[in-house]
Amino acid sequence: MFTTTLTYDSYEPATEGLREALTSTGNGYICTRGAAEWEDPGASHYPGTYTHSGFNRETTIVAGRAVLNEDLVNLPNWLVLKLRVEDGEPFRLAGTADVLEYRHEYDLATATVSRFVRFRDPAGRETSLTSRRFVSMSDRHWAGIEWTITPENWSGRLEVITALDGRVTNWGVARYQELEGRHLDPVVPRTFGPEVIGLKVRTRQSQIHVGQAARTRVLDLDGQPVNVARELYQMEDYIHQTISFSATEGEPIRVEKMVALYNSRDHAMSEPLTTAGTVASRLPTFAEAFTRHQRAWSELWERCGVEVGDDEVQLRLNLHIAHILQVCSRHTAELDAGAPARGLNGEAYRGHIFWDELFIYPFLNYRLPEVTRSLLMYRCRRLDEARAAAADAGYRGAMYPWQSGSDGTEETQVVHLNPRNGQWEPDLSHNQRHVNAAICYNIWQYYQATGDIDFLSRFGAEVLLEITRFWASLATFNADRGRWEINGVMGPDEFHEKYPGSDEEGLRNNAYTNVMVAWLAHTAGQVLAALPVRRRRRLWDSIGLTEGELEHWAELARLMYIPFHEDENGDAVISQFEGYEDLEELDWAAYRSKYGNIQRLDRILRAEGDTPDRYKLAKQADTLMLFYVFSDTQLAEILGRLGYGYEPDAARRNIGYYESRTTHGSTLSYIVHAHVLARFDPDRSWEMFRTALDSDLNDVQGGTTAEGIHLGVMAGTLDLIQRGYLGTEGNGELLRFTPRGVQKLAGQSMTMRFRETVLKIAIDHERLSVSRVDDSPTLIWIAVEDSIQEARPAQAVEFTLQS
Amino acid sequence: MFTTTLTYDSYEPATEGLREALTSTGNGYICTRGAAEWEDPGASHYPGTYTHSGFNRETTIVAGRAVLNEDLVNLPNWLVLKLRVEDGEPFRLAGTADVLEYRHEYDLATATVSRFVRFRDPAGRETSLTSRRFVSMSDRHWAGIEWTITPENWSGRLEVITALDGRVTNWGVARYQELEGRHLDPVVPRTFGPEVIGLKVRTRQSQIHVGQAARTRVLDLDGQPVNVARELYQMEDYIHQTISFSATEGEPIRVEKMVALYNSRDHAMSEPLTTAGTVASRLPTFAEAFTRHQRAWSELWERCGVEVGDDEVQLRLNLHIAHILQVCSRHTAELDAGAPARGLNGEAYRGHIFWDELFIYPFLNYRLPEVTRSLLMYRCRRLDEARAAAADAGYRGAMYPWQSGSDGTEETQVVHLNPRNGQWEPDLSHNQRHVNAAICYNIWQYYQATGDIDFLSRFGAEVLLEITRFWASLATFNADRGRWEINGVMGPDEFHEKYPGSDEEGLRNNAYTNVMVAWLAHTAGQVLAALPVRRRRRLWDSIGLTEGELEHWAELARLMYIPFHEDENGDAVISQFEGYEDLEELDWAAYRSKYGNIQRLDRILRAEGDTPDRYKLAKQADTLMLFYVFSDTQLAEILGRLGYGYEPDAARRNIGYYESRTTHGSTLSYIVHAHVLARFDPDRSWEMFRTALDSDLNDVQGGTTAEGIHLGVMAGTLDLIQRGYLGTEGNGELLRFTPRGVQKLAGQSMTMRFRETVLKIAIDHERLSVSRVDDSPTLIWIAVEDSIQEARPAQAVEFTLQS
Repeated sequence: MFTTTLTYDSYEPATEGLREALTSTGNGYICTRGAAEWEDPGASHYPGTYTHSGFNRETTIVAGRAVLNEDLVNLPNWLVLKLRVEDGEPFRLAGTADVLEYRHEYDLATATVSRFVRFRDPAGRETSLTSRRFVSMSDRHWAGIEWTITPENWSGRLEVITALDGRVTNWGVARYQELEGRHLDPVVPRTFGPEVIGLKVRTRQSQIHVGQAARTRVLDLDGQPVNVARELYQMEDYIHQTISFSATEGEPIRVEKMVALYNSRDHAMSEPLTTAGTVASRLPTFAEAFTRHQRAWSELWERCGVEVGDDEVQLRLNLHIAHILQVCSRHTAELDAGAPARGLNGEAYRGHIFWDELFIYPFLNYRLPEVTRSLLMYRCRRLDEARAAAADAGYRGAMYPWQSGSDGTEETQVVHLNPRNGQWEPDLSHNQRHVNAAICYNIWQYYQATGDIDFLSRFGAEVLLEITRFWASLATFNADRGRWEINGVMGPDEFHEKYPGSDEEGLRNNAYTNVMVAWLAHTAGQVLAALPVRRRRRLWDSIGLTEGELEHWAELARLMYIPFHEDENGDAVISQFEGYEDLEELDWAAYRSKYGNIQRLDRILRAEGDTPDRYKLAKQADTLMLFYVFSDTQLAEILGRLGYGYEPDAARRNIGYYESRTTHGSTLSYIVHAHVLARFDPDRSWEMFRTALDSDLNDVQGGTTAEGIHLGVMAGTLDLIQRGYLGTEGNGELLRFTPRGVQKLAGQSMTMRFRETVLKIAIDHERLSVSRVDDSPTLIWIAVEDSIQEARPAQAVEFTLQS
Repeated sequence: MFTTTLTYDSYEPATEGLREALTSTGNGYICTRGAAEWEDPGASHYPGTYTHSGFNRETTIVAGRAVLNEDLVNLPNWLVLKLRVEDGEPFRLAGTADVLEYRHEYDLATATVSRFVRFRDPAGRETSLTSRRFVSMSDRHWAGIEWTITPENWSGRLEVITALDGRVTNWGVARYQELEGRHLDPVVPRTFGPEVIGLKVRTRQSQIHVGQAARTRVLDLDGQPVNVARELYQMEDYIHQTISFSATEGEPIRVEKMVALYNSRDHAMSEPLTTAGTVASRLPTFAEAFTRHQRAWSELWERCGVEVGDDEVQLRLNLHIAHILQVCSRHTAELDAGAPARGLNGEAYRGHIFWDELFIYPFLNYRLPEVTRSLLMYRCRRLDEARAAAADAGYRGAMYPWQSGSDGTEETQVVHLNPRNGQWEPDLSHNQRHVNAAICYNIWQYYQATGDIDFLSRFGAEVLLEITRFWASLATFNADRGRWEINGVMGPDEFHEKYPGSDEEGLRNNAYTNVMVAWLAHTAGQVLAALPVRRRRRLWDSIGLTEGELEHWAELARLMYIPFHEDENGDAVISQFEGYEDLEELDWAAYRSKYGNIQRLDRILRAEGDTPDRYKLAKQADTLMLFYVFSDTQLAEILGRLGYGYEPDAARRNIGYYESRTTHGSTLSYIVHAHVLARFDPDRSWEMFRTALDSDLNDVQGGTTAEGIHLGVMAGTLDLIQRGYLGTEGNGELLRFTPRGVQKLAGQSMTMRFRETVLKIAIDHERLSVSRVDDSPTLIWIAVEDSIQEARPAQAVEFTLQS
């Protein structure tokens, strides 16, 4: 049975932000974090609840420059509950009462937060308070908090203040605090009968209306209503009820605050506040709503659980699954939402969508493919904007932005605040065109896992072909080399924006980008071939494809230029980009000893008046990405088609060269390294995997998790199990496993969906078994290494492993 | 090749409303009608463009009673273009100029409206003007108008006024004109560069923001920009540009107004006006946009075309297909939209959703199943509201409303204006609970046509089971009869709301309702059995199903009470409801001679102080619906299970009894009668079919089409071909045809989708052939009568017909 819980036994203001991010509760539509209950009743600037749907884009002038501002919808704070004993001050953790006991728990099984506090007020009254809250996974618009209050050594009057607070600001990321943080304009407060208060606000730029309504009831231990007096207070952007009642020593009293949350982009409603009020009035009890919530989570765990034989690893994987499902659940699938890099758990990166999808979808593809489909639709719906961006830049096809928000235009900041020197420095990271290769890779991987030809033919193929067309128009032919080149772009390593001293942005022939383009140029033909014949013809006409273009693409698949240079041993390694070998070596020891943590060497060097562009260093895996996205077989095929050799120890040689020159300034880097190492150094790989597992839980970057979890890394750790260690690869009707580091895998089991079948995978020291538990007619085959068996409905196949 | 065009050769103000409804142009997202170009420049109250997404519900007090008001979003009028020659008055059809020539054409192939006018102004200047406009089927947010202006006998100055007008009101239905017609509040006008004007408004209650932007260009015959002067005029809810330029005798000048339309529920945008402005600025030329539009329509016709050997019938079928696709297209599938009874072509019934789906989906199921799925989702998303309605009324499960709008609550008017006597009379039509049977029937039919188990198991089954549960809790056991009964409801015949003189609403044991419930009670078990085993278990738990309930349902399938009585010949007919035989016969001849058109006998009788409740009469098919929704085999099975006999001539006997007592006050009635007659009286059936075909084109109800087309009848005529005459019936992997009236069918052909296959059906006097043109691996079988053949990819099967 599922029993993992995160527990914190004392209140620590310094790490409270981290705890809040880690113990947030969400359902793929909204996500709530924050200390808004009793800790600091005045902390209305502290954000509570975020949602995907719709982004808010405003430009603010900071230090004379235009800076794009927050893009996340921060909803009014529905958590506010305050407690006043007799005539005392409202209780605050950091207030005048003595805290005798404190516990903060997070049940990963249901993403439920509980807190327990026992305190003594200046008058000597001791009171205990248990709080539980959840955002419903069964019913998208529901959330609830339950308080159990016990006067331990006194009887008398208790007052509870229950509020909806629209005065929230985006304040969660210190370095954004110079920017305008207020994004909600007041609309109106109102009540719905005696028990329900409601509040409506509107986002400032996107004009999304948000309606919330809360029903608060006070009950005795038998669930019977307690006699209460209610008093209302409201302003244009805030509403509360003060509920007062008598309490008796030793007799617990329960307060239930059930909340309905709507916004104007929601379906099946007329106006969000009216609907919220109606729904709040008829919400079930906390217990009933919680039972439904639990049932929904239990179904999700049955689908998505990954079991391993190690408790510590298991805790972390569960934490990661719980967070992935809070950002990307079935409720997300009804929204026009992408997968934001920092989830909905914080404001860092302003809710933007980068390339993290590449690390997130492999996990979802094999578990909740309907969610991946919907997230891919986020891209498909923005195809016209990407076409316009390509045209504006003088290219054909579609060019998706590096950072994407609501309308699909480029959201990347043009200046970047270096906290080390307080300077705003130019930011060229929008040149990371490789996000366009990732989108195509994601579409193809989704199709391989699901066989969803409907998606491919109606939506995915068009995006993939238009992106291929973009790359083809960006590529230039170098007659001297007889090769096609791509210049002026950046790879995933953000430390290299241009050549040192150059006025031109970007680099020449980033190897990762060029190999991805060669792969795509080949795959585009496969996609066309996979389409139903009538659709192929229609699409061909509608985007005006020509035979000449297809020939050009085929040539790119054969003639993209890939730079190589020699490592310390005189062996060839892939150059991160052309001319990489001419850069200077950094004195790593000196910087480590001077600065300690050098993950953000870019900021360090710039603050010194230097630039990372000069050195052989990387923020994160760049060239190594190739060994992450492709298997050895695939990479050998792609490079072979290009006429470059691919030697068996290429991965080892390249990781040997680049690992020592990487700061892991992005935690994604650990995922990639662990993945590449899995095939020849399982122990070191496992070590990296363990680092990645800790990255959010232990906030390894020293403060970034409080600003929002790292969704790509969280999903990446699960994909390491699935793709890195089990070596899972879907291809047509065949699902292949190539287990690596088998001794670490023993005891693992998981459920996967593959082309409409449901498979339970289990692995021990000697065997990998796959039980098919669905009754669909789909024909599939399972392979382990070179052994292939058909997997029939309600049957199991077993493979013996070489360890 | 497709060449059908509707042409009107003269301007007739009296029927202009009808022409506008019939020649509207839409794309399933927005639909534009209206004379707003040059006819009446002041007619800003005359509506232009409607959209599905989001409904606007307001309550107005009329004559001391609360009346629900319009529920359709009427967008600002983007059509406004006015023409001024030299210093004259702006040209108006009904103005001071002499109209020398006039033509109004509607190209059904692309839903494109063209008009041509040649006029002479008081100064003797003759000018010709050709106008073409479309709402893009390829690009959901695009629309365009093109004017070609030729000074025939003069040269000089021309002025074009191009506007966006937010001052529109809902004014299209005379009897609603007492109600508040203004539903848009102004927000702001603005410009985007010299060529683009924009306007933003907000619906009053639902607060949907609507942004429109229009780019107007003036071009010579070579497509080169003409030198123009532009002058701007704007108010808070209106904006226009006056564009003036020189024109030369005999040299045509083109004006292109390209428009982008967005609202705040749209995807992939931040704020609708900004997005509209950006998109309008980069729209292609009219010609390019039109080519894309044409291509999209041509694909739709390839999918949805139904060819018959008769030109007049063909014209009407094409008209109907063109309109169905304007209300329910792939663009609809991205919206939270249902299928409104009157389409988006007018304001009658305020955009509400009734049971017309029952007549619309059979056509879509076999052509654009993704659209049916999305329209069914409109119901699935409102399940909670239907649950609340059932609970409020004291029932279990889910009770969907008779009239449904944005939030899924009951929208049926409680009073009804009788235009004959100006009285507001009580309206009990919300008791038509049979809409709940139709929803289940639609879900099951969609599943039969598509095999879409994903929809059934994630969404459809839950709705169907919850509705079954509702019926079960509504049914009461009559111990005397040993039968289950349903009392207090109305059948489809709206003339019978209660027993004459009774204070209780509704009737006892409406036969149509009871048989549908018996069918559903049986089908619910089949649905459960069809679900994947894990999903069945989950659903069972989540809605708390019990074995006891299933037993109860099985009993309903065996023991629903169905009333019968004897017709004039002493043969048993199904009673429309219990006690029908005790009602009085109406003196039909007297009423016909006194009133002529007696389709709305209810209004006539009530105006006389009488009530239709007293008589054996029906507005539309009620009992006969049974022979429409079920085949003879199915009906024999259902009634057999109930222990009632089903004699071979039951259909003939029942139609003989009811047809003469029906006024066809709903045009749906013709569809049902034609369908039932098909099996034994093809000639009379064909006559009814022809009446139904004419119902909108010739406005047979005398004015109702101008208020909006009748989507159910339009689709019903196509379903008559498919299901009535070809006898199409999908069941598992088997698609069966039972052709009736074969001589009428000769020369017919159509394309159908069935469980992911694509089939071309052709029929002549002797043969029915089915060519499978897809390359999917799906296994299907085709049957004609008792002959069954497997249909393999890229192969044809042929059947010989008995005529």
